[in-house]
Amino acid sequence: MPTINRYVDISEVDKEAKKDYIDRHSPFIECGSEAKAGEKFPVTVRMGNEYSHPDDTDHFIKSISLYNGTTLLAEANFVSGTMGGQGQKNQAEVVFNVVASGPQMSLTALSYCTKHGLWECDPVEVNVA
Amino acid sequence: MPTINRYVDISEVDKEAKKDYIDRHSPFIECGSEAKAGEKFPVTVRMGNEYSHPDDTDHFIKSISLYNGTTLLAEANFVSGTMGGQGQKNQAEVVFNVVASGPQMSLTALSYCTKHGLWECDPVEVNVA
Amino acid sequence: MPTINRYVDISEVDKEAKKDYIDRHSPFIECGSEAKAGEKFPVTVRMGNEYSHPDDTDHFIKSISLYNGTTLLAEANFVSGTMGGQGQKNQAEVVFNVVASGPQMSLTALSYCTKHGLWECDPVEVNVA
Amino acid sequence: MPTINRYVDISEVDKEAKKDYIDRHSPFIECGSEAKAGEKFPVTVRMGNEYSHPDDTDHFIKSISLYNGTTLLAEANFVSGTMGGQGQKNQAEVVFNVVASGPQMSLTALSYCTKHGLWECDPVEVNVA
Repeated sequence: MPTINRYVDISEVDKEAKKDYIDRHSPFIECGSEAKAGEKFPVTVRMGNEYSHPDDTDHFIKSISLYNGTTLLAEANFVSGTMGGQGQKNQAEVVFNVVASGPQMSLTALSYCTKHGLWECDPVEVNVA
Repeated sequence: MPTINRYVDISEVDKEAKKDYIDRHSPFIECGSEAKAGEKFPVTVRMGNEYSHPDDTDHFIKSISLYNGTTLLAEANFVSGTMGGQGQKNQAEVVFNVVASGPQMSLTALSYCTKHGLWECDPVEVNVA
Repeated sequence: MPTINRYVDISEVDKEAKKDYIDRHSPFIECGSEAKAGEKFPVTVRMGNEYSHPDDTDHFIKSISLYNGTTLLAEANFVSGTMGGQGQKNQAEVVFNVVASGPQMSLTALSYCTKHGLWECDPVEVNVA
Repeated sequence: MPTINRYVDISEVDKEAKKDYIDRHSPFIECGSEAKAGEKFPVTVRMGNEYSHPDDTDHFIKSISLYNGTTLLAEANFVSGTMGGQGQKNQAEVVFNVVASGPQMSLTALSYCTKHGLWECDPVEVNVA
């Protein structure tokens, strides 16, 4: 409270509307599985994998935050209109470039929809060598 | 993950260091129990009730967010140095003024410490008339 | 570019619509003229002095930042709906509590309206003793 | 006030320290010159072109904002430690993906260094077809 919603495997969800709801609100992390210590490592976070989210003024993706374990690395804030605007749907997306440290990073993303609150994804493990 | 820590009643915690740790990282909401619909309603959020938090460059309170249920109302971001700076301790504090709506608000605050991550408080119920 | 608009004395502006436009977009700083070093010093920033700003989903006050000279002290982000919502007008307001340092602070506020961009106020000088 | 610093062509600057100071604090926008209406258009903003900025806890790049004319599109916030941490230097970088609209975009980036304040770059014009 605020509840944080989590992605669940939509292939196991029956209703199309529910699949759409879950997928479009979930942040997906896309990055390599190995990072070089001290070098920039691009991490893409995209909202939705198979579905897209509205970009209406009263219903849009406001933010995406990237954590390594419990540590905030970076956050992006958006305003409505950046993803096509009223009546359009799209997948909000940001690429953060983080300089990897530690033997491992455990990346998680947290996003906020102005109508449907906070959502997070499962951690993505990255080896740092 | 990121884990969100929650305040626990420190009167039931034995160790002084643990009381301090929990209290100084917890946001406390201070506001009336009744709000008038359509009127500004001040909500103070203060970090720590009995203890204070460092304001060191590598260890400070970075943000405080205020939610009504699952809806973000406002967030404050701080930089180190605003609460006294290196070697000093203080209770970060912000007053948001929200125009109350609905028959009730359920306010929660979420804060972020650059060393000890996310913390939230129990919801505070406010009747709106 | 982005242009930063500045408040101008509206008593010298003829047209009512222009007075309203300038006033409702300008942040006003309200604080004491003397602060005690090392003590929390409340600084209120309010949008508009005589006029109020819409809180529509496509037109609202998104943020207020507080600077001491060129140094950011704190910033507040808002979502539409916090100030009454669609069709309502109000003066967005936040109280930051900063621990004063230096012999003097020169406070400025910078705000952002989702339709009319960045606005700043003239600096307010505060003696710190 | 807060002063916004602007990039100046460092090839016309004599002193090495001054070149470094200006370059490492300036946001550089990298994107195509043509965008397709309704499609995602990646815009990279990188701090520094030839020089790198420290990532010390008391001196780091805190934020990068992207504007189209006077309209904020997106902003990224960073914490120190994301670019290598204490004693390291790097070029903070973020890729925003904006869905282009209008016949033209005039993109500007605004960045904030915790020691040296606000900096902006010259606008980059993008045709939208």
